[in-house]
Amino acid sequence: MPPTTGIGVPRHEEQQLQERLARSASAVDGVATSTEQFEKWFADRLAAQVHEVVPIPFRDLRNWSFAEGTGNLVHDTGRFFSVVGLHVRVDDGPVREWWQPIIRQAEIGLLGIVVREIDGVLHLLMQAKTEPGNPNGVQLSPTVQATKSNYTGVHRGRGVPYVDLFRQVAPHRVIADVLQSEHGAWFYRKRNRNMVIEVGPEVEAGDDFCWLTLGQVQQQLRIDHRVNMDARTVLSCLPGPALDSGVHTGTELLHWITTNQALHDVDTTVVGLADLPGWRRSDWSISHERGCFFSVRAVDVRANSREVAGWTQPLIEPHGVGVAALLVKRIDGVLHALLRARVEPGYLDAIELSPTVQGTPENHAHLPGLVRDQLRDLDRLRSRGRVLFDAEMSEEGGRFYHSRSRYMIIEVGDDHPDQEPDGFRWATLPQITWLLQHRHYLNVQARSLIACLRACVD
Amino acid sequence: MPPTTGIGVPRHEEQQLQERLARSASAVDGVATSTEQFEKWFADRLAAQVHEVVPIPFRDLRNWSFAEGTGNLVHDTGRFFSVVGLHVRVDDGPVREWWQPIIRQAEIGLLGIVVREIDGVLHLLMQAKTEPGNPNGVQLSPTVQATKSNYTGVHRGRGVPYVDLFRQVAPHRVIADVLQSEHGAWFYRKRNRNMVIEVGPEVEAGDDFCWLTLGQVQQQLRIDHRVNMDARTVLSCLPGPALDSGVHTGTELLHWITTNQALHDVDTTVVGLADLPGWRRSDWSISHERGCFFSVRAVDVRANSREVAGWTQPLIEPHGVGVAALLVKRIDGVLHALLRARVEPGYLDAIELSPTVQGTPENHAHLPGLVRDQLRDLDRLRSRGRVLFDAEMSEEGGRFYHSRSRYMIIEVGDDHPDQEPDGFRWATLPQITWLLQHRHYLNVQARSLIACLRACVD
Repeated sequence: MPPTTGIGVPRHEEQQLQERLARSASAVDGVATSTEQFEKWFADRLAAQVHEVVPIPFRDLRNWSFAEGTGNLVHDTGRFFSVVGLHVRVDDGPVREWWQPIIRQAEIGLLGIVVREIDGVLHLLMQAKTEPGNPNGVQLSPTVQATKSNYTGVHRGRGVPYVDLFRQVAPHRVIADVLQSEHGAWFYRKRNRNMVIEVGPEVEAGDDFCWLTLGQVQQQLRIDHRVNMDARTVLSCLPGPALDSGVHTGTELLHWITTNQALHDVDTTVVGLADLPGWRRSDWSISHERGCFFSVRAVDVRANSREVAGWTQPLIEPHGVGVAALLVKRIDGVLHALLRARVEPGYLDAIELSPTVQGTPENHAHLPGLVRDQLRDLDRLRSRGRVLFDAEMSEEGGRFYHSRSRYMIIEVGDDHPDQEPDGFRWATLPQITWLLQHRHYLNVQARSLIACLRACVD
Repeated sequence: MPPTTGIGVPRHEEQQLQERLARSASAVDGVATSTEQFEKWFADRLAAQVHEVVPIPFRDLRNWSFAEGTGNLVHDTGRFFSVVGLHVRVDDGPVREWWQPIIRQAEIGLLGIVVREIDGVLHLLMQAKTEPGNPNGVQLSPTVQATKSNYTGVHRGRGVPYVDLFRQVAPHRVIADVLQSEHGAWFYRKRNRNMVIEVGPEVEAGDDFCWLTLGQVQQQLRIDHRVNMDARTVLSCLPGPALDSGVHTGTELLHWITTNQALHDVDTTVVGLADLPGWRRSDWSISHERGCFFSVRAVDVRANSREVAGWTQPLIEPHGVGVAALLVKRIDGVLHALLRARVEPGYLDAIELSPTVQGTPENHAHLPGLVRDQLRDLDRLRSRGRVLFDAEMSEEGGRFYHSRSRYMIIEVGDDHPDQEPDGFRWATLPQITWLLQHRHYLNVQARSLIACLRACVD
């Protein structure tokens, strides 16, 4: 446990942090690293980190197998993660009961970004990192993505650069530290620890690392599949301006969230992966009988950039390109985003707040309901509003194979009604930033979009 | 769903609420109800609400039975709650693995207090309510204690006075609304919704209800077994002054909490109640072989104050009188309370913040470790410090039979070290109030003590 802060001396939040982050956000051309230097470094990483990822039948998995009885897909050591079955019953939406495969990974991982002041401007130490599921190889990643054993265990971060900085951080150097969920449709109660810490000039960038201003990182967000999910969620947890006025007060938003937590019944039971109703296992995949949602696959990975030369592992392959769209509107001059209280089976609680629209058109084609209508209405909203952000991004490439989602932020005009549909609320960016100090209010798709929204308004 | 708040009009938190609550806290002699009137009303309730509670063997339970196979103690309808087994593995403390009975009750209940301004002073509508497990019959309770089906279901609050006020509340009349945990040693992931709402003069007090100022309720807290657990937890969630300085900043406290959430491994598996290692079932009870902890019992209840004239039910009977003690200290003139990051198996997350000392001496007699040492050290702390609060209180009488805990707040002097033991942190009352806006930071014992601490310093 790191030493505690100055005992006996009452202390205040750092007042200058907002200004320092704002200055870094405005330094879009870079300070320590010019845009040209960055592009050259990134191209070099792309050339250097070669991953060959080949789909294989399950029988060719090494150290992974289907457990007897349950049929769960597990590692011989019991470590890493497993793919199990989930029986879900909910009290709302077009489908009230289903079974599905889901990833179980109880450990809380660390996603951490190191920040350092260089020439008077805060810089983020970003990593160029390949994951087997990435559709395009290298993506910009947090300084550290570590499993719990990496950052607490006996081996204490051997092989994970910079992880000791997080283990040993002095409390007053912590800028953000909060548990957040991952994809509630694919992960069962998985959380990561999102941390941002400030370090001194003694910390330098290794080969796969680069100092970028917040403005530079925000520009990279606009490039398809450039900034990985782990980096996006950590960025979303950065502190921001104090809570100010909105069409709802903070207390009213909390009341609305609690109401939705208390009203929705989500009953989940972990079951065996074998014989899940609606799912078929072949030599190569476990897929839904209608071809929807996702498949469980196996891949063989040959990498030159890791401590191990190659491995095999299961991955989830989502079908279709997901859509995550946030409607924003200036109401009485103040920017508000329209969030939805959304049920997903993998959340620790019943609901988390999601983007205005979240879904995959193929999965909703046969399902009349709100999300299908929303997805169909997006083109109209895009043409009548102002598209602030539009990029395709991947989800976590360590678990998801070529997952693609189109993230959009659309500013609607005064012709769009202020009135909120049932289960939706307008919240200001400071209010959302206030919620993001605390665990499990916003889901991972909403967090990605908040990181992008700040890139649009900073 | 109630109507949303004023669309299109940015709004601020009510600025006067702090002052209004402070005025109510200072009105210790009452406004609408004098102390004499209150005492007479309470004595009348005590005489009117007669509960005869008789221990019975399990076989005499009506509509409750041990399920085949699991041996779980369940209601025939599957409703209310059940007693199941839990297998627990933790990575810290003197005992790393155990089995125990635990209450499973997935539903989120409502604990709500109605507040109304009378003669310019806020009054709380408190209820005189008997529960079968109360050691002394009637206790002061929230306006509403309702199950989920009471406040959302088909029967919508039939038989539960005032519950519709909470269902239909306008968002701007909500003073607090937050999910909080119950006893993590006895309940598996049970949460309640803690709500405070303001109403208008159209709401009047029924026979079992009384308008009291916050100051009057705080005085009642000092009387043994007078204010029930449900009222204490709701009181703890009242808003307070804005976050100010402390020896740690808010960000530092969140960092410490997240560190403890991430570091502790708590692995719980729900198992059958039959054949739990270390536990013995007789005709009359399920008890631990060493006589420690608690027993599961059955009682027959005959009441004259409920819609049903009588019923039988299981209850948990804790052994020994629990201790929950909070050390507070003025550091540089600012009052701080010493909270502990505590693992309990029934929490939704790994840890919640507990009082400085929490335990039952009998359970720790044979266990060397921190809690035993703390319990032994209490007399020394009491004699050297200033005892601000000391009363015996009950836990939830609908589930616990004659549970008694001694709640203490001890102000230590400058001779007590500022330095925090591992796993403890000093936090100011405004910081704790800030945490209590959000779910699951403080456990139910700590929340009780925070309600009491406000009674000492308001």
